[in-house]
Amino acid sequence: MKKYCAEFIGTMILVLFGCGSAAVAGSTLGTLGIAFAFGLSIVATAYVIGGISGCHINPAVSLGMLLCKRMTVKDFIGYCIAQFLGGIAGIAVLYFLIRQTGLGQIVVTGLGQNGFGRASAVRLSMGGAIVTEIILTFVFVFTVLGVTAGESFSKIAGIVIGLCLTFVHIMGIPLTGTSVNPARSLAPALFMGGTALSQVWVFILAPLAGAAVAAVVWMCLNKKTA
Amino acid sequence: MKKYCAEFIGTMILVLFGCGSAAVAGSTLGTLGIAFAFGLSIVATAYVIGGISGCHINPAVSLGMLLCKRMTVKDFIGYCIAQFLGGIAGIAVLYFLIRQTGLGQIVVTGLGQNGFGRASAVRLSMGGAIVTEIILTFVFVFTVLGVTAGESFSKIAGIVIGLCLTFVHIMGIPLTGTSVNPARSLAPALFMGGTALSQVWVFILAPLAGAAVAAVVWMCLNKKTA
Amino acid sequence: MKKYCAEFIGTMILVLFGCGSAAVAGSTLGTLGIAFAFGLSIVATAYVIGGISGCHINPAVSLGMLLCKRMTVKDFIGYCIAQFLGGIAGIAVLYFLIRQTGLGQIVVTGLGQNGFGRASAVRLSMGGAIVTEIILTFVFVFTVLGVTAGESFSKIAGIVIGLCLTFVHIMGIPLTGTSVNPARSLAPALFMGGTALSQVWVFILAPLAGAAVAAVVWMCLNKKTA
Amino acid sequence: MKKYCAEFIGTMILVLFGCGSAAVAGSTLGTLGIAFAFGLSIVATAYVIGGISGCHINPAVSLGMLLCKRMTVKDFIGYCIAQFLGGIAGIAVLYFLIRQTGLGQIVVTGLGQNGFGRASAVRLSMGGAIVTEIILTFVFVFTVLGVTAGESFSKIAGIVIGLCLTFVHIMGIPLTGTSVNPARSLAPALFMGGTALSQVWVFILAPLAGAAVAAVVWMCLNKKTA
Repeated sequence: MKKYCAEFIGTMILVLFGCGSAAVAGSTLGTLGIAFAFGLSIVATAYVIGGISGCHINPAVSLGMLLCKRMTVKDFIGYCIAQFLGGIAGIAVLYFLIRQTGLGQIVVTGLGQNGFGRASAVRLSMGGAIVTEIILTFVFVFTVLGVTAGESFSKIAGIVIGLCLTFVHIMGIPLTGTSVNPARSLAPALFMGGTALSQVWVFILAPLAGAAVAAVVWMCLNKKTA
Repeated sequence: MKKYCAEFIGTMILVLFGCGSAAVAGSTLGTLGIAFAFGLSIVATAYVIGGISGCHINPAVSLGMLLCKRMTVKDFIGYCIAQFLGGIAGIAVLYFLIRQTGLGQIVVTGLGQNGFGRASAVRLSMGGAIVTEIILTFVFVFTVLGVTAGESFSKIAGIVIGLCLTFVHIMGIPLTGTSVNPARSLAPALFMGGTALSQVWVFILAPLAGAAVAAVVWMCLNKKTA
Repeated sequence: MKKYCAEFIGTMILVLFGCGSAAVAGSTLGTLGIAFAFGLSIVATAYVIGGISGCHINPAVSLGMLLCKRMTVKDFIGYCIAQFLGGIAGIAVLYFLIRQTGLGQIVVTGLGQNGFGRASAVRLSMGGAIVTEIILTFVFVFTVLGVTAGESFSKIAGIVIGLCLTFVHIMGIPLTGTSVNPARSLAPALFMGGTALSQVWVFILAPLAGAAVAAVVWMCLNKKTA
Repeated sequence: MKKYCAEFIGTMILVLFGCGSAAVAGSTLGTLGIAFAFGLSIVATAYVIGGISGCHINPAVSLGMLLCKRMTVKDFIGYCIAQFLGGIAGIAVLYFLIRQTGLGQIVVTGLGQNGFGRASAVRLSMGGAIVTEIILTFVFVFTVLGVTAGESFSKIAGIVIGLCLTFVHIMGIPLTGTSVNPARSLAPALFMGGTALSQVWVFILAPLAGAAVAAVVWMCLNKKTA
C-alpha cells in the first residue's frame, strides 16, 4: 500500500509543479524554465520515494518496467491508478491556487494541458503530435530503463532521469507541450474539458506506444546473444 | 559552537545571494535565474559546512529533523537562532551593497522579501499564500529528509537538495517569492518594514507547518510495519 | 553489430533534439536553452548505450579514441558510418515534423545547420570559423578523453560530458552554431543544400582537427615519463 | 612542468569561454547564461587536468590552498605565472575571434572585463566592488577548500565547484561582472586598457583577500580542538 501512496504523492508533485509552472509562470519562465520545472520534479521525488516505489510517477514508465518484466501486472495496475489519481489531485490544487490569484479565468491561463493543431504553439498536426509523443517518450523511457538496470547508477539515476525529462521538454514544449506521461495529461484535460479533453487520447496512447518501443529496443540491445 | 557558526555563515550566504539576486539582478535574471541563485546556495554551502552542522540553514529543515528525532531540542534552538541571525547578517550586507549602487531607493528595488496580495506578482490571496508555502515547504523538506536518511546518497545530497530548492522556487517565485525558510523571510521583512513585515508571519508559520507535514508523511512512509 | 545500432540511435537522438530545438524553439529558448538541448542529449543517451558502444555519437570523439588507441580502425569506420546515418535519420524525422507544423518553409526555419559569413549570427569569417571549431572540439574531446580514462569517473562521466557539450555551445552558437561533431553538421547540410552544403566541409574537417589536437595534448600530459 | 602546462590550458579555457560568452553572446545569453559559461568551464576542465594539477586555474584558489598548506610556495608561484599567462592567451584568442566577426570595434563589445562605477551595470561604487569581490571569492574558495578536503567528494568536486562558480556569477555579474579570479581579470584589462586597466587592481587584490578570509575561516571551523 505504501508504494501506491508514494506514487500518488510523487505524481501529484510532478503534475502540480510542472503544469503549475507553465500555467502560473510560463511567460516569465520561458521554455527552458518550464522544462526544468518538469525535470527537477524527478530530482525532488526520486530520492524520497525511490526506495519505496521506484518513483515511476508515470504510467508510461510503469509500462516499460512491466514489459521488461521488472514489475507485476497487479502492481502495474495499482501504480497506474495511483498515478492518475495523483495527477488529478495535483491539478485540483493548481486549480484552487489559480483561483486565489488575479490571473483571471482558468480558461485563459490554462492548466498546462497538452494539445495539437490550434492548441499547439507551432500548429503541429495530429499526426505530427502522435509521432512527436512516441519519439519523446521513447527517449525518456529508454533512458529510464537503461539507467535503472542493475545497481551501477543507483546513486545518480534520479538526477539523470530528471535531466532527461528536462531534455525531452525543451524541444517538445512548443510542439505539443510535452506529455510523455498519460497521468500528467489526463488531469488537466479533465479540468479544462473542450479541446484539451477531446485531444487527450493522443497524449495517453502515444506515450504508451513510445514506452513499448523503448522496452522492445532496450531488450533487443541487451539480449545475451549477440 | 562550531556548528552554530557554520549555520550562521551558511544562512548568511543563502540569504545574501538568494535575496540579492532577486533585488540586484531580478530583471535580467528572470524567474529561472533567481531560482538557480537560491538553489545553488545549497550546493555552495553543503560541501563545506555539511560535515560540521549538516547545513540545514533553514529553521523549517531543522524542525523536520527535530520531529524525525535526528537532532536535540537544544540544538534545534541553537540552530534557529544562528539561522535567523545569519539571515539578518546577509540582508545587512545586501542593504549596504545596494546603497553602494545607482539602483535608487531600497524601497524601489526591494530586498527579495516575500509577499501576498498586492505584494505578490500574481496577486495571490493570503489563503493561497499559506497553502502555497505549506506545499512548497512540504516538497522541499520531504526531499531533504529522504535524501539525508542513511548514508546512501551522502555524496550527492547537496546537489539533490540544491536542485530541489531551485525546483520549488520555479513555480513559487511568481506566487509568493518562495519562502520555505523562515530565516530567509524574516530578515528582509525586518529591513523593509511595512507590508513585508506585516505579512511575514505567513512566511514563518506556513513553512514550519509544511515541514511538520513532511516529517509526518516521511515517518508514515518509512515505518517498519507495512 | 549492437554497438553500431547503439551509435545510430544515439546520434539520431542528439541530432533530432539538438537541431530540432534550434529549428523549432530557438526564438523562445535562447542560446542557453539550445545549449542545454545539445548537452542533455548526452545525459539522455550515455546511461543507456554507454555500456554497449561507449556512446561516442560523434566522429570527432571516435577519432580521439582511435588516436589514443582506445578503439580499432575497423570499429572507428563502423562507428562513423553509424553516426552519419544516425544524423541523417534524425534530420529526416525533424524535416517530417516541421512539415507537420505551421512554421512555414523549411528554408525559413532552417534545420539547425552550421555556418559562417552571412550564415553566422555574428558574421564570423571562414578563418574564424575554422579556428572556433578547432578550439571548441579540442575542449570537448579533451574533456571526453579525460573523464573516460580509467574507471574513476565512470558513474558521472555522462553528466560531465553532457555539461561540457552545453558549455561549448554557449559561446559557439552565435559564432558558428557549434558543430564539434561532423555527423551533426553533415545531415542538416544535406537537407538544406545551398550555403549550408557548400560550407559543411569546415564543420567536418575542423572538428576532426580539434579532436586530433585534443588526443595529442592528452597523450603528452599523461605520458609516464615526466 | 606538466602541472604548469595543465594550469595554463585550463585557465585559457576558462577565460576564453567565460569572457568570450559575455563579449560575443551576452545580449542573447543573459546573466544566467554567462554564469553557466564561467561555471561549466570548471566542469569541462576539472576532470581532465584535475589529476595533473588539481585544476585551480585561479590564483585566488591557489592562495587558499597555499594558506591551508596544501601546496608549496614554489608551486604557488609557478601556478600563478601559468594562470596569468593562460588568461592572456585566452583573451588573445578571443581578441582574434572578435576581429573575425562583424561585431564591430573591440571597444564596443568589450572582452568581458570587470569594472565598477560607470563600468558596472548597476554603478557600484569602488568600496562596494571591493566588498563584493571579497564576499564572492570567500564563498567560492570556501567551497573549493571544503569539497576538496579529503577524498570524500573527489568524484563530484568538479561539478560542485563549477556550480558554485555559476552561483557567485549570478549575483555578481550586474555588480562587478564577477572576477573572483585575478587571472580572469588581468588579461582583458591588459587588452582593453583605459578604465579596465586602471580599475584592475581591485579585481586582483580583493579576490586574493577573499581567498585569505576563506582559508582562515575554513581552518578555524576545522581545527581539531573544539
